[in-house]
Amino acid sequence: MSRDDPGASPQARYDSVRQRSLKLAEPLTDEDCGAQSMSDASPVKWHLAHTTWFFETFILERLERHFAPFHPAFRVLFNSYYNGIGDKHPRAQRGLLTRPGMAQVRAYRAAVDARIAGLLAAGADAELAALLELGLQHEQQHQELMLTDVKHLLAQNALLPAYFDAPSSAAAPAAPQSWLRFAGGLGEVGHDGAGFCFDNELPRHTQFIAPFQLSTRLVTNGEYLAFIEAGGYRNPALWLAEGWDWVRAQGLDCPLYWRRDGRGGWQEFTLYGPQPLAAQLPAVHLSLFEADAYAHWAGARLPTEAEWECAARGVAVAAGGLHPAAAAGKGLTQLFGHCWQWTSSSYAAYPGYRAASGALGEYNGKFMLNQYVLRGSSCATPAGHARASYRNFFPAGARWQFSGIRLAR
Amino acid sequence: MSRDDPGASPQARYDSVRQRSLKLAEPLTDEDCGAQSMSDASPVKWHLAHTTWFFETFILERLERHFAPFHPAFRVLFNSYYNGIGDKHPRAQRGLLTRPGMAQVRAYRAAVDARIAGLLAAGADAELAALLELGLQHEQQHQELMLTDVKHLLAQNALLPAYFDAPSSAAAPAAPQSWLRFAGGLGEVGHDGAGFCFDNELPRHTQFIAPFQLSTRLVTNGEYLAFIEAGGYRNPALWLAEGWDWVRAQGLDCPLYWRRDGRGGWQEFTLYGPQPLAAQLPAVHLSLFEADAYAHWAGARLPTEAEWECAARGVAVAAGGLHPAAAAGKGLTQLFGHCWQWTSSSYAAYPGYRAASGALGEYNGKFMLNQYVLRGSSCATPAGHARASYRNFFPAGARWQFSGIRLAR
Amino acid sequence: MSRDDPGASPQARYDSVRQRSLKLAEPLTDEDCGAQSMSDASPVKWHLAHTTWFFETFILERLERHFAPFHPAFRVLFNSYYNGIGDKHPRAQRGLLTRPGMAQVRAYRAAVDARIAGLLAAGADAELAALLELGLQHEQQHQELMLTDVKHLLAQNALLPAYFDAPSSAAAPAAPQSWLRFAGGLGEVGHDGAGFCFDNELPRHTQFIAPFQLSTRLVTNGEYLAFIEAGGYRNPALWLAEGWDWVRAQGLDCPLYWRRDGRGGWQEFTLYGPQPLAAQLPAVHLSLFEADAYAHWAGARLPTEAEWECAARGVAVAAGGLHPAAAAGKGLTQLFGHCWQWTSSSYAAYPGYRAASGALGEYNGKFMLNQYVLRGSSCATPAGHARASYRNFFPAGARWQFSGIRLAR
Amino acid sequence: MSRDDPGASPQARYDSVRQRSLKLAEPLTDEDCGAQSMSDASPVKWHLAHTTWFFETFILERLERHFAPFHPAFRVLFNSYYNGIGDKHPRAQRGLLTRPGMAQVRAYRAAVDARIAGLLAAGADAELAALLELGLQHEQQHQELMLTDVKHLLAQNALLPAYFDAPSSAAAPAAPQSWLRFAGGLGEVGHDGAGFCFDNELPRHTQFIAPFQLSTRLVTNGEYLAFIEAGGYRNPALWLAEGWDWVRAQGLDCPLYWRRDGRGGWQEFTLYGPQPLAAQLPAVHLSLFEADAYAHWAGARLPTEAEWECAARGVAVAAGGLHPAAAAGKGLTQLFGHCWQWTSSSYAAYPGYRAASGALGEYNGKFMLNQYVLRGSSCATPAGHARASYRNFFPAGARWQFSGIRLAR
Repeated sequence: MSRDDPGASPQARYDSVRQRSLKLAEPLTDEDCGAQSMSDASPVKWHLAHTTWFFETFILERLERHFAPFHPAFRVLFNSYYNGIGDKHPRAQRGLLTRPGMAQVRAYRAAVDARIAGLLAAGADAELAALLELGLQHEQQHQELMLTDVKHLLAQNALLPAYFDAPSSAAAPAAPQSWLRFAGGLGEVGHDGAGFCFDNELPRHTQFIAPFQLSTRLVTNGEYLAFIEAGGYRNPALWLAEGWDWVRAQGLDCPLYWRRDGRGGWQEFTLYGPQPLAAQLPAVHLSLFEADAYAHWAGARLPTEAEWECAARGVAVAAGGLHPAAAAGKGLTQLFGHCWQWTSSSYAAYPGYRAASGALGEYNGKFMLNQYVLRGSSCATPAGHARASYRNFFPAGARWQFSGIRLAR
Repeated sequence: MSRDDPGASPQARYDSVRQRSLKLAEPLTDEDCGAQSMSDASPVKWHLAHTTWFFETFILERLERHFAPFHPAFRVLFNSYYNGIGDKHPRAQRGLLTRPGMAQVRAYRAAVDARIAGLLAAGADAELAALLELGLQHEQQHQELMLTDVKHLLAQNALLPAYFDAPSSAAAPAAPQSWLRFAGGLGEVGHDGAGFCFDNELPRHTQFIAPFQLSTRLVTNGEYLAFIEAGGYRNPALWLAEGWDWVRAQGLDCPLYWRRDGRGGWQEFTLYGPQPLAAQLPAVHLSLFEADAYAHWAGARLPTEAEWECAARGVAVAAGGLHPAAAAGKGLTQLFGHCWQWTSSSYAAYPGYRAASGALGEYNGKFMLNQYVLRGSSCATPAGHARASYRNFFPAGARWQFSGIRLAR
Repeated sequence: MSRDDPGASPQARYDSVRQRSLKLAEPLTDEDCGAQSMSDASPVKWHLAHTTWFFETFILERLERHFAPFHPAFRVLFNSYYNGIGDKHPRAQRGLLTRPGMAQVRAYRAAVDARIAGLLAAGADAELAALLELGLQHEQQHQELMLTDVKHLLAQNALLPAYFDAPSSAAAPAAPQSWLRFAGGLGEVGHDGAGFCFDNELPRHTQFIAPFQLSTRLVTNGEYLAFIEAGGYRNPALWLAEGWDWVRAQGLDCPLYWRRDGRGGWQEFTLYGPQPLAAQLPAVHLSLFEADAYAHWAGARLPTEAEWECAARGVAVAAGGLHPAAAAGKGLTQLFGHCWQWTSSSYAAYPGYRAASGALGEYNGKFMLNQYVLRGSSCATPAGHARASYRNFFPAGARWQFSGIRLAR
Repeated sequence: MSRDDPGASPQARYDSVRQRSLKLAEPLTDEDCGAQSMSDASPVKWHLAHTTWFFETFILERLERHFAPFHPAFRVLFNSYYNGIGDKHPRAQRGLLTRPGMAQVRAYRAAVDARIAGLLAAGADAELAALLELGLQHEQQHQELMLTDVKHLLAQNALLPAYFDAPSSAAAPAAPQSWLRFAGGLGEVGHDGAGFCFDNELPRHTQFIAPFQLSTRLVTNGEYLAFIEAGGYRNPALWLAEGWDWVRAQGLDCPLYWRRDGRGGWQEFTLYGPQPLAAQLPAVHLSLFEADAYAHWAGARLPTEAEWECAARGVAVAAGGLHPAAAAGKGLTQLFGHCWQWTSSSYAAYPGYRAASGALGEYNGKFMLNQYVLRGSSCATPAGHARASYRNFFPAGARWQFSGIRLAR
């Protein structure tokens, strides 16, 4: 059952998610779709092919009676990290795959879609339904990456091209910041059983949480600018040791997409192209290092993922546009649809966690080391993909995601 | 009050700890004491000087009425990582400090010792007592590093020199392994208030712990060898993704100090020089990657630090020799004095943690990222330095410490 | 006056060279044209734009009365290495320039071509004629690189796509090898004054050359295979010290585009796609390290560039196809049109060499260090671009050019 | 026959050279002798052992009737780069060999010396005489490296210790600079047959040399300072492309051992410790990159090695102290005994060069790539070791040798 539209058929939900991926590529040229700006990012074309490979490998190959691959080499070319499936094209060289071209990748998608439709027409049992949902959730994750990866790519080009035309929107001020108190105590953490979740959200389990406070909204560009102007990037006392090494090795003094405009002000590169820095918008594209240093400077701290989840439970989930918006409303705002929020929690297995058997067991578990959890969702997260128990995770230095700061204390 | 000898005076305890550092250097030549085998390790001479610098900088400079440094350049040369103190000699180049020589470093130690004695003779107030204890605990930490660092140095030399003559000991078999059950529930974690602890052991706080089991003893060389022979280092399904990259990038197939003996068997390099691998001894010098892969292969897991601490509370603390010994006795054995035990817990601040103000606040807090907690103590840990709440921490790939595996499930 | 067609007008020659660049891109998709397989190589699109930038920057900007750039950002985006012109887009990130797209680059070419035609229509003085010829020779150099760079790109793709359909050609055996003797003595080296040459071929000067012998033809695949089978890649005694480090660091055991076919034989990747290794064809895509080791093994040596030039003077220059052909005929064969031939000569200024003033002085002179001279021309060299005094140069480890071995002794 | 003292016996000459090595270590502690400041440099202890290994391996092992090694592991520990001998201790880890200690290395030297004396007492045939002379020349090369390597080591230490007490010398001004003209023509290059030479000085052969001029003296600190103050390190137009990359990657703005004194002036670190920069002394510890850029700026060029050799033939050879002295006298001064002089010549085999057979053939030939020739000798070169045909060679970025600039035009 679709989370987007509870009444939709499996086929309709499948079509809806799959078509959105192609829709995301529409503002781009075939040349845009082929390039890879760094090894952490992938070409849009590769995302389109890999998500298709996922359905082909984990559904068609298992369930089709007479399976034959669309192209034998694609098994290697579009395998991301599944050792259980076999060899992989080197991650850092995905941008060199000028063949297959976009036209062939579209044909690949169409062929797999038709075969999935054939399976669905024959009736979806529980295994097919579960694998299909996993494939669609997986594709939604890659939809978010398509946007963050293409943003990173376009930012490398001195022409600073826009992915999309900027909307003409009035600049509303951000709602004032205040603190919400939570009593803590024994709480349940993890997915509650209804609807889809990833294996890393399970099992739901008990944690003891001390009383805490959360900020009602995200840290804004204006607030982060004050940190910069107070010498935040030059004061080692504010930083984790590894963060300070990171700042100095790269000579950093501002967030990833900020640039001085040459007239004493700042610009921010967005999916709408370069824009004057808007003080009321959330500060975004920050590493955990920066988030932690800011919190330290502000006399606060980052929340744990358990605190965040308990506070967010029951809050309505909203989806965003192509850039975070200013905080509006009362209570706990901007949990979903603006930017992911770094927590202080290392990405680790919940007590009793079990990975799936076989290659699908590589989906999450093997990455539970030296990464930190982000909670919420971002403006790039597809509608229907976010929930309070969702665990996103990246290394502490990652900045190309829409990641920002919600303070705790 | 000394933890070693409760009746000792502060001066006697100071002398006892300080003299032990020099004692550790006795089997070594001055040349041995100057070399640095990798940037993670330091020369013995540097350890001897840095621990002295700690007393000079954090006690003499604060409390002496007319402080003058022993040598102005030492402030930089022997500063480890305190940005609050100022510049630091580059960590990777500590082995290039042929001056001051060992004789001058001994003179430096003697001069600082005399001035500390002067302060103590004038009466030790609470501040001096606290700083003195911190300095002695700090020196004990470096005493352990002196042994692990010199072991790493000697292992780089094809002559494979012994640090010390091997004792002639009968090879006792290891006690059989079994599982101890723990009921879990709400538990208190962190130091309990009596005696010294580091800031990272505080504050004591409540955690909810699910029921668990711990192995009665450490994993042995014989057991680890079975993992190797079963292809453990060649099967990516057993490893964390980063661990598998680590294994392949370095071409690893055994623990740090194991070497094939050319006759189908194995040798292990120890502080007694190379020895035939003894199946009953604990497997040691393992990374977290290896510990985790072994646990995976064995159908078990690593404990969390909270599980370990709750299980260890009240167990008597023992000190070791220069190499771990075989498990003996019943119940939970080998908690202390053999090897540190990797946990699955990321090194993080306890809820409500506060670092000290000033440069001493850099002691622990800034390292709480991308490191994992080890519990217990090793054969190299000085007597009186271990306790159930002690938190040791290293990156997942570190192997030169005496680190091994206690399984949980 | 054109070297291709002595009677052609400057405009006709310009059109002919410029059109050939577009012709080379015809077998490729726009996606193929955008990718960069390594920092030494450039995307085809970048070559098409940079060669246009050269005419715009060094001719239009100098000679047009009211110069305005086609696009201000292109000055940076398509500057290769001219510090005298200003900033440069990072070399290793040329593959990230998805904008301008191929259509815009074609428009850029057309616009500059029209403006050049305007200048020519107004009459070509000596300065214009000289700059125009330099621009065309420069473009021909890039035409060769377009082929070698796209070959390298296609080779990274497991699909191993062909750039062009293979011709159906009968496999002729190679002419037998013999040695030609040269008397040496005082010889003149460098361009003789008629027709175009690069500044590095000047001034013509006297050298004393001892008697020497040259092989009548290039080393073949069959001969090189014998070197491999004799353990050539495993014997350090055959290699320069830096070459041996290079072999071991990369784990090499064959030329760049050779692959074992899984049935005991070898394949070679070519612009026609993968082909069974043909023993009679020249061994190609070799580094200087490999050429030198082979010569050592064969009891011979590489020629100096002076020897090569004196021997080649007066030999007719031929152009090739997309792959070297087997030696045919008598006397000194395969000097031109098959593969560049490594010499033992370091790339250095001729006595009395003067670089041009201004940014054009950066064309050659600043690269005269740690590179070695190759002589002749390859199958990828445009017709009319080769001559006996031509000096090509690459670092000793470069393999992606059509580079092979002519022995001397 | 000794070059130092023509009447000395082989044994006396052997003793004299061997004792000088130990003499060089006298101002140093055992700790100083063990450290290695970078992989290009070696510990003094290693030099003392390796030069002994050379006699043991190439003389005792060949000529002793019942050869047994002093210590079997030394064959590996003290092998520098002879693949023909076997395995080698990793070059970058020579500073980790705290065992054998200096006392054992002295014992090693004494034992080999005694066995060499035994062979000599039995009568020195031509083979022994030739090998002995090679071993002594080899040891003299390492005597120079002992000084340059220890200078580099001491410079890494903030204490800036002096190797030796500075002499009290009056500061004489440098002789004025002028140009000497040479007619060129056919010249003979290479050793002339009398006395010892290395294989790379052979065979003597004919070269044609165009007329040229050489500066009468070396470039001084004062002249080089003018280059710095004119922005020499900030102007890419003066530098080879690789040199400019080198300057920027390392952020360089002065020679290796220059430091600003904090009062607007400069200090130079010397073997006498830090000294105020003396304008009249030769500029030294320069890379080829710097020498070439300076020459470019000064409107001159570096000489070729053939020009240098022809000019220097017949000039008396002088030895120096521990630092270059100011130019004195008329004519061509400072050829020998001050600093090596970079040439523009790539280090390459002379026409007809043949390396020795066996492992000794690795002495020179395998390094003839990507290195440049320096001519003359330095203040650190032992007396009797220099001659006009001597070819020293280093990569273009090497600065820790006493290397400077003699201009040509």
